[in-house]
Amino acid sequence: MKIISESPLGSRRRPEESRAAILQAAVREFSNEGVSGARTDAIARAAKVNKALLYYYFKDKEALYGAVLDQVFGGLSESVHKELSRKSLPAERILAYAGAHFDYIAHHPLYPRIVQSELMSAGRGRTEQFERIVKQYFRPLFLHLHGTIMEGISREDFRRVDPMQFVPSMIAVITFYFTAAPVMQNMTGTNPMSRNALALRRAAVLDFISAALFVKSTAGEPRRKKLSKNARRA
Amino acid sequence: MKIISESPLGSRRRPEESRAAILQAAVREFSNEGVSGARTDAIARAAKVNKALLYYYFKDKEALYGAVLDQVFGGLSESVHKELSRKSLPAERILAYAGAHFDYIAHHPLYPRIVQSELMSAGRGRTEQFERIVKQYFRPLFLHLHGTIMEGISREDFRRVDPMQFVPSMIAVITFYFTAAPVMQNMTGTNPMSRNALALRRAAVLDFISAALFVKSTAGEPRRKKLSKNARRA
Repeated sequence: MKIISESPLGSRRRPEESRAAILQAAVREFSNEGVSGARTDAIARAAKVNKALLYYYFKDKEALYGAVLDQVFGGLSESVHKELSRKSLPAERILAYAGAHFDYIAHHPLYPRIVQSELMSAGRGRTEQFERIVKQYFRPLFLHLHGTIMEGISREDFRRVDPMQFVPSMIAVITFYFTAAPVMQNMTGTNPMSRNALALRRAAVLDFISAALFVKSTAGEPRRKKLSKNARRA
Repeated sequence: MKIISESPLGSRRRPEESRAAILQAAVREFSNEGVSGARTDAIARAAKVNKALLYYYFKDKEALYGAVLDQVFGGLSESVHKELSRKSLPAERILAYAGAHFDYIAHHPLYPRIVQSELMSAGRGRTEQFERIVKQYFRPLFLHLHGTIMEGISREDFRRVDPMQFVPSMIAVITFYFTAAPVMQNMTGTNPMSRNALALRRAAVLDFISAALFVKSTAGEPRRKKLSKNARRA
């Protein structure tokens, strides 16, 4: 088996390595510069490939940006749908989802800015990628969360919230920390992306969502008994 | 009293009118183009002033951007500190704050993008305005909310949350809707900024925060009696 082959246009790396290197450099460039500011020259240079190879894999900057969005949302979708598809109680699935969503962003610190910037572009009417992203990633996730919440409500484990409102609120609590990190850093003088800070934040996110969603059996106490019985089963 | 005077450089408007027109045009331009993309030419044109007059009031683009941030955060601060300073129970003050914060953004639809863009710049290390904004607006608001939450906890009206975590979560739930509006619009085909959609969202935000913060006396029921007694007094 030929492991190191001459890939098109003379790169000595395996094709999938070159493609991955370009994509990784593109994530960084789009995160720092936004779509309009990003330059394929800079991406090719950072990926250590020539520009012709970049255009061999990605037709143009727009196609490369589309691949970056697929990288960001594809990985997230895989991770969270897995948690939402587990055979466990709705309350456990919602918390597992929230934890996985949080962890995904925590492990990919360049992604929030790409998402923010895409939302802002969409708000200005730039919809080339946006409509596809909503259809391919946001809508299925929303439906999965919607179904899970309705199931929890019908079991009387969850308060009678409107999923159309609750889902965005929950995603807000999970994701906002990463956007606001510079503020926290400036106010506290500590690193909000440290392992310790992230662990504290993750616990607070799950606590916030639990309190906002779960029916309490007694003042302030979630219905632990039901949960732990299932946790033993799982 | 001379109401219409020749202001510097020949504008026929009163000086404060010209300044306000420039600021209003700048809010729109910075919201659409970001700091680096915004052009003072376009701002002067939109404000119907010549560029020399713009530079008479605002030394340079950076100074104008600083004035835009003061417009955004100054107005917000005034509105929310007023609610947090009322003579009422902590629970009522927190909800009044959340409602006022939500209403402020709803009435200034260009502002969220300016805030997002400033947070993103700060994340990239652009700190000229950011440190001042944090010191002048974010920190005092955080301290006011922190004190209110601690008061509610000591009265046993609030769960024992950590304000360092709860405040960002609460702000997330209040503000995220406006960033995510393009997604909601695309998914539902309805206008998330309509009067009706905003009223539904506002109620959901207050419900979410209440459930996440308030100690429940019985399953799902907030301690209404205490609240309404005070509401009568107010």
